[in-house]
Amino acid sequence: MMKRLITLLTDFGLHDVYVGVMKGVILQIYPSAMMIDLTHTIPPQNIGYAAFCLQEAYPHFPPNTIHLAIVDPGVGSERRGVAIQLKNGFLVGPDNGLFSRILAQESPLQVIELNRPESWRNSQPSSTFHGRDIFAPIVGHLAKGASLKSLGKPIDPESLVNFPFPKCIPLSQGYRGIIQYSDHFGNLVTNIPAEMVQGKKWVLTIKEFPLLKIASYQTYAQAQTGDLMSLIGSHGWVEIAVNCGNAKKQLGLEIGREVDCLIQFA
Amino acid sequence: MMKRLITLLTDFGLHDVYVGVMKGVILQIYPSAMMIDLTHTIPPQNIGYAAFCLQEAYPHFPPNTIHLAIVDPGVGSERRGVAIQLKNGFLVGPDNGLFSRILAQESPLQVIELNRPESWRNSQPSSTFHGRDIFAPIVGHLAKGASLKSLGKPIDPESLVNFPFPKCIPLSQGYRGIIQYSDHFGNLVTNIPAEMVQGKKWVLTIKEFPLLKIASYQTYAQAQTGDLMSLIGSHGWVEIAVNCGNAKKQLGLEIGREVDCLIQFA
Amino acid sequence: MMKRLITLLTDFGLHDVYVGVMKGVILQIYPSAMMIDLTHTIPPQNIGYAAFCLQEAYPHFPPNTIHLAIVDPGVGSERRGVAIQLKNGFLVGPDNGLFSRILAQESPLQVIELNRPESWRNSQPSSTFHGRDIFAPIVGHLAKGASLKSLGKPIDPESLVNFPFPKCIPLSQGYRGIIQYSDHFGNLVTNIPAEMVQGKKWVLTIKEFPLLKIASYQTYAQAQTGDLMSLIGSHGWVEIAVNCGNAKKQLGLEIGREVDCLIQFA
Repeated sequence: MMKRLITLLTDFGLHDVYVGVMKGVILQIYPSAMMIDLTHTIPPQNIGYAAFCLQEAYPHFPPNTIHLAIVDPGVGSERRGVAIQLKNGFLVGPDNGLFSRILAQESPLQVIELNRPESWRNSQPSSTFHGRDIFAPIVGHLAKGASLKSLGKPIDPESLVNFPFPKCIPLSQGYRGIIQYSDHFGNLVTNIPAEMVQGKKWVLTIKEFPLLKIASYQTYAQAQTGDLMSLIGSHGWVEIAVNCGNAKKQLGLEIGREVDCLIQFA
Repeated sequence: MMKRLITLLTDFGLHDVYVGVMKGVILQIYPSAMMIDLTHTIPPQNIGYAAFCLQEAYPHFPPNTIHLAIVDPGVGSERRGVAIQLKNGFLVGPDNGLFSRILAQESPLQVIELNRPESWRNSQPSSTFHGRDIFAPIVGHLAKGASLKSLGKPIDPESLVNFPFPKCIPLSQGYRGIIQYSDHFGNLVTNIPAEMVQGKKWVLTIKEFPLLKIASYQTYAQAQTGDLMSLIGSHGWVEIAVNCGNAKKQLGLEIGREVDCLIQFA
Repeated sequence: MMKRLITLLTDFGLHDVYVGVMKGVILQIYPSAMMIDLTHTIPPQNIGYAAFCLQEAYPHFPPNTIHLAIVDPGVGSERRGVAIQLKNGFLVGPDNGLFSRILAQESPLQVIELNRPESWRNSQPSSTFHGRDIFAPIVGHLAKGASLKSLGKPIDPESLVNFPFPKCIPLSQGYRGIIQYSDHFGNLVTNIPAEMVQGKKWVLTIKEFPLLKIASYQTYAQAQTGDLMSLIGSHGWVEIAVNCGNAKKQLGLEIGREVDCLIQFA
């Protein structure tokens, strides 16, 4: 049987043993499980942030990888737990839109609702930690080779909760977008896709800084140390960066702020 | 031979290579070792905090798992290093009370003092990093299948250092306890066990906030967003939480503060 | 074929999925890869800090381990990517001095420049994330058993970029050095090697604190709780510590500050 790799993404942080406990539960079911942490420092309850991270990581894993994602403000409520089979992998977690970005790019082959307590840690799960009591056991069984339909009831993929994500809009000379993510280096990632600007030069403007025009470069090292710059980031979006610096700190900008990208016809 | 899984819990933090070095030492001895991090951000030298985390994680791992735990303010002094065999696993670390909570629930089958330098990294261990020089090698040998008694001298389990942990006391209408732990989400975990309140309703009061009465719920989502609430946490203790918020920040409460739990006869 | 272990050290932080993505790329090439994180919280772009951490970790891993290290302010510029074979392991990363400290202790057997796009993720790597597009694939191929010379062009080891690290200088009665590293516990690690003081007593002085004389001890526990002390740290350097405390916070000292170590003839 094909070995199925597991990834984990949560907002559980690194201070408690919650992530370790889920891994223990998975290993109790499938002792050879191979598990990779994507990140556990999603801002608490921030579904949109998690959806962005999942979209970025998903394409880089081998076929049949199982992605367990838990950012779950509705834990213990009526919200469903789901497992989704795609051509290139499996997704397991709460049905709250976490997987919206991946599903916008790849259609589900099969979706189940996790409604079979026989596959859980026990039939009386806690109302606060479905990661341990429901999702980890499901992932353990899947990794061991269980079929999706043995773990729950098939449901209509159309019924999955959608978490809308902001799209950029065309301007006469370019695109208006927002900052949708900022990374560890303080790079500010917009929602303007690389395809819109590939092979072109552009200038970014930000309403809050009317005098600022941020020019485009191809690599960090092309700009002077400490200079603001725009380039296509590795995730495939236009980003704002500072060579050897931190654009987020330098500009004091938060996720959600509006950005205009003006294409230059050189 | 049965493969033995290893977990690691320390106060080493994530900035240095100390944890990685211990893993390297284990892999030098047993190249197929499978290692799971529980947490490495125990507050420096906080034995009680580590003991709570170990108690929470221990039951969720497969039989024969080896739990390496190092929070070791007495490193290099006369304090002993020990390895403990239980029915469901092994514990390795300094003899300073780290394992008290687990041992209060499960009696040791065998305890050894780590007094055989032949099993260490070398016979002249550093006086500051027994994790690398003594404990990691012992764990490597154990994972590879060594017997406990080949690694040290049997000692009386009664001689192990006990780290007392606070128990709640009965009141006429409920229990008086303390906040014993706060997690990444700011949930405040008391030392009042779930069994005391299961199936009942209760109200929590805190001396510092005479007007506050915190009502009990079954899930986070039952309370209004931002409201203080009490419920049974996944670890099996009464906790104080805020739906989609942070109770620790909202109340400004620290570990150790007194809490009264008054059972309501509905 | 011998299984080759992989370690990872970066300045990518733990908030993004960058490290997870690199692991996914490695696993796409070599699904049984075994990967150990050294640390991902190197201060952004701090090559000297990373070189210290690599030197500390390297000797503790099994022969043939592949060490992937990425702290890469010059990503996308003309700086080379390299892979280095040593007697006891492989080093992969940008040619910017990251490996200088290891190479000062162990001569390379073979060095290649990573100039073969056939071994990369694709022939058009991003200009910002060579970790994903070049280094991770190279590590995957190496772990799977590829020879160094199948992955790039042999280059002269003498041509590798050297990152100088500060050496202590002799005084009439001891050594003048600097603080070269501070760890999670606030221990201040000087660049005065253990060999200089082994078996002796000494006193440390710091220019900023003319009245302070820090005495030497053998273990943390020998000093009074809260007292400043000096001892030989586990990394093999003279360090300043506080028993059960944080020397960095107590002294307010940063990396780079000058320290005199005066040997006492007792």
